[in-house]
Amino acid sequence: MAFFPAALDNLIDRFASLPGVGRKSAQRLAFYVLSMPDEEAIGFADTIRAAKKEVKRCRVCRNYTDHEICPICSSDRRDRSVICVVSDPKDVLSIERAREYNGLYHVLHGVISPMNHIGPDDIGVKELLVRAANEEVREVIMATNPDTEGEATAIYISRLLKPFGLKVTRLAYGIPVGSNLEFADDATLTRALEGRTEI
Amino acid sequence: MAFFPAALDNLIDRFASLPGVGRKSAQRLAFYVLSMPDEEAIGFADTIRAAKKEVKRCRVCRNYTDHEICPICSSDRRDRSVICVVSDPKDVLSIERAREYNGLYHVLHGVISPMNHIGPDDIGVKELLVRAANEEVREVIMATNPDTEGEATAIYISRLLKPFGLKVTRLAYGIPVGSNLEFADDATLTRALEGRTEI
Repeated sequence: MAFFPAALDNLIDRFASLPGVGRKSAQRLAFYVLSMPDEEAIGFADTIRAAKKEVKRCRVCRNYTDHEICPICSSDRRDRSVICVVSDPKDVLSIERAREYNGLYHVLHGVISPMNHIGPDDIGVKELLVRAANEEVREVIMATNPDTEGEATAIYISRLLKPFGLKVTRLAYGIPVGSNLEFADDATLTRALEGRTEI
Repeated sequence: MAFFPAALDNLIDRFASLPGVGRKSAQRLAFYVLSMPDEEAIGFADTIRAAKKEVKRCRVCRNYTDHEICPICSSDRRDRSVICVVSDPKDVLSIERAREYNGLYHVLHGVISPMNHIGPDDIGVKELLVRAANEEVREVIMATNPDTEGEATAIYISRLLKPFGLKVTRLAYGIPVGSNLEFADDATLTRALEGRTEI
């Protein structure tokens, strides 16, 4: 016997299909949506449709935008000689927040992952090479995540970039600022020692 | 400078307004929706609309249903002499799962909470009294949550039910089955001792 109407079960299923949302949370979210005023719930539905319809990838850097070319790529205040390669649009946000970087970006939307059948063609590597061929570009910073796949992707791309004769760099590894040595893992400590600088 | 298009920001805001979803999770969910195939994202939007449109409250017990009267209230296999009062539709699911109870339900959709301006009229207490006046009913089980507001609501309602001359009961308190005495809090242990039974 079904205790919930089909339309409610469907909504629970949809929420449960989102990443990091378990069955119990999906139930809670679905009940919450039902308890919303009508116009709010419909507004939620419309926001999903609108985001899907209006948000595109920038033709240059592949970051999300509602223009043909995103505000960063079309800005005349950015340094066009550096491209920072990240795996996700949210990484652009993280780097912008640090207010240290003023170059351009290239968003891969993923990393190379043979296990998940994601190859270089799926993450816009070709588009990056086309951009790197532009003589204005002097440096490419690899800022994929410091995990196995991010690392492998960075190494793969940097090899392809070698023939272009430009500087290819990687974000520094080390102890996070404000953290505690006690909690740093061995791999991080090893990298921090290797990368030590004179004071 | 906004890094994300407005439509994406709106979607992040919507997700962040859901209970238990922080800013970071909202971002992750919004990005996930953008990465979905078009028909899947639109399906999600439509599911929200459909749930909101089709799911109503049962005219008798106020549980969610897509009929005028829910399957439990309209079933001829349920014991119509007992009404179990719960605060949320998901509590009906929990109790049904135990396969011990065969009576009817009354769903409050909340508890009395002066802090949040929720009074008896907001949680269908009047509707419960109308049902309790039916001579078929012999017992009302208060199954609101064992927290302060749930407790207060149970006591308030049980007082209103007194004049009807029917049995009003409360779920038993005690040590959860399979748990460990070591982790039981004082209040639970006190109730477990008070409610001890002969073996």
